[in-house]
Order: sequence, then structure tokens, then C-alpha cells
Amino acid sequence: MTTSSELVYSTSVCPVSRQQLIELMKKSLSEKRFNHILRVEEMALKLAEQTGESLEKASIAALVHDYAKERPDSEMIQLIKSGNFDQELIQYGNAIWHGILGAELIESELGITDSAIKSAVRLHTTGAKEMSLLDKIIYVADYIELGRVFPIVEEARKLAFADLDQAVAFETYHVLLYLMERNLKIYPKTVETYNQWVAKK
Amino acid sequence: MTTSSELVYSTSVCPVSRQQLIELMKKSLSEKRFNHILRVEEMALKLAEQTGESLEKASIAALVHDYAKERPDSEMIQLIKSGNFDQELIQYGNAIWHGILGAELIESELGITDSAIKSAVRLHTTGAKEMSLLDKIIYVADYIELGRVFPIVEEARKLAFADLDQAVAFETYHVLLYLMERNLKIYPKTVETYNQWVAKK
Repeated sequence: MTTSSELVYSTSVCPVSRQQLIELMKKSLSEKRFNHILRVEEMALKLAEQTGESLEKASIAALVHDYAKERPDSEMIQLIKSGNFDQELIQYGNAIWHGILGAELIESELGITDSAIKSAVRLHTTGAKEMSLLDKIIYVADYIELGRVFPIVEEARKLAFADLDQAVAFETYHVLLYLMERNLKIYPKTVETYNQWVAKK
Repeated sequence: MTTSSELVYSTSVCPVSRQQLIELMKKSLSEKRFNHILRVEEMALKLAEQTGESLEKASIAALVHDYAKERPDSEMIQLIKSGNFDQELIQYGNAIWHGILGAELIESELGITDSAIKSAVRLHTTGAKEMSLLDKIIYVADYIELGRVFPIVEEARKLAFADLDQAVAFETYHVLLYLMERNLKIYPKTVETYNQWVAKK
């Protein structure tokens, strides 16, 4: 298996090297979140290796997926208001915003224009009706990285390497249940993901 | 308390008498469903009496709320295609269609044009972000009528007479859970209802 430190990014996909991207993330994120994105990268590379996805794109998408997670709400709301976003978004919180806005911020601030990477960042929290292989890898890797300790995570990990689509379904089902148990708002896109990947046809 | 048989419908709200409406329903529905709508009426009248809603409208809406429930799918799909409906509806089934289309059929076939009654029929399965008192009464009465025997129904009944909004929330939460446990599709409107009535603000 390729180790992540051997990965060479082509400048057309990412303007900086992996080491430079990691330094950028270290400066942008808390230590806790920085360690999380490294673990997501590790898991995403394993899933990419197994499924034949580009290791380079899996690495970049994993490292930047939470790029907007620690921005202040005021900045995010300003972005939603000034950008081409569904204004209903404002009703939700950064748990939803950081993927959707993060996909734009990695382009405007980091120069990452690759549409597959942007999509994986955009969808990593909610999933979607249609998901590419890279979308699925980042969505699942974020849920099962080795720092996660919730009760069903072992089952999710096994599923991820046995059947990635089933892992998408499992995660979506349990995320919805988690939101309901805490009476938290459900973003409509999450239900579209459920209807596509979990619900019987 | 007014008994249902004493209710006199004004012709501006319903072109036929209660007895005639009941005869019409008896002809349109299976015996099982006919008995269900009589029990929904009984419960809706109790809730209307307690909350000051029009008994007449509660009676009519309850009696016709399942008017379209036993129509063949082919007829419903034809209606969706020819009418002014969200075409996404076709992906769902009659569990969702019968309220939305029923609201139109009670007007076109029974001459019931009252917008409050139509709304209560339209929303009785999914609820909505905004619900009138009559909407809530029919939504809840359908869930707690005395023929219902699921485990939490007694709790729902108590709640309905203590706090109708809380009963709307309770029902919505448990309907969502029911759908998920069976991996059934979730209609997006049901999630809007959850976000409004169940989720923390």
C-alpha cells in the first residue's frame, strides 16, 4: 500500500504539496480537528486503495473536508447571503454549512478547483441522492476514522470494506436516528440520501 | 357535548347532510375503513369541542379524510400527471397521495370547497410546517382514534387532550421512527413537519 507521505499531488489538482496542505490545515484548525482529518485521510486512502479511486484525490478531499468547520457562524451566514446558495440554509447550523460552504472555500482560498474533490467536501455531512465513489469514500471515512468510538462504529467499519454502498446506507440511517433521538433539525438533503440509499425501492 | 347525529351541516360548507355524507362514504369505502372514519369523527369532535373548533368542519373533514385511500394507484397517478401537482409525488405511494389528492377529490366529486376542510384532508398524513387548528385535530384524531392499538397510543391520546401541539410533535416523531424502522421512504413534507414541531429551535 502507498503510504500517504509518498503521495505526490499534481499541481492541476492541488496547487500545493501534501506537506504544504497539511501545514495549511494545521494553521487553520484546532489540534483535535487536525488530528481528525489525518485519521480521515488514513481511512479514505484505505477505501480508495480497495475501490480503485485516485489516492491523490482521496487524500486531498480528506485533508480539506473540514476546512470550514471552525469558522464563526457570522462569517458563514455572510457567505450564504452573498453567494449563490439556497437561503433556507441559514435556518441550519455549521454542522450543515461547513461542507456546502467548505467546497467553495477550498477553491477560493486554497485554489482547489477539482470538481470531484469539491463535491466530496460539499456532500460529506449530508450525502446525496447521487454520490460518486469519492463522495462515498469521504462520507464514510469521516464516520469510521479510527478516533470514532460510538457503539456501532465497528459494524460500520466492517461494512465499509465489505460493501461501500451498504456503509453509506448504514451511516445515513444511524445519522438520521441520532438527529431524531436528540430532537435536532434534519436537513432535507439527508432525507433524500435516506430515500435513495436506505429506503426500499 | 353535542352528539354527532345532531350536527347540521350548512349547505355552504357541505352540499349534503351528515347522514347523506355517511351514506356516500359507506358506498366509497371498505367496511373496515368506513368504521375507521366514524371513529376519527368521534375523536375529532371531542378535540374540536375542547379547543373551540367548528364541530361541523371537524365532522366533515374527519368523514372525508380517507375518501381517496382506496382508489387504484393507476387512477391516482393519472390525477397527479394531469393536475397541478409536484411530479415528484409519483415516486411515493397512496399512503402519501390519498391526502393530497383526496383534498381535490372531495371538491370535484363531493362539492366540498371549504378551504379549511380541504387543508385538513391534504395534510392529514404528513402534517406541515404551518397547521391550522382543524389541520391538527384531523392529523391527531386519525392517529389516536379508539380503534388504534399500537403501544404508545394511550400516551398520544393523553397528550392530545393535554396539549394538541405536543400531540402533533409526538405523532410526527413516532411516524418518522416507524418509517425508518421499516426502511420506508420518507416524504420530505414529513421532515418539514418534524423540523417545525419536534426539533429544538
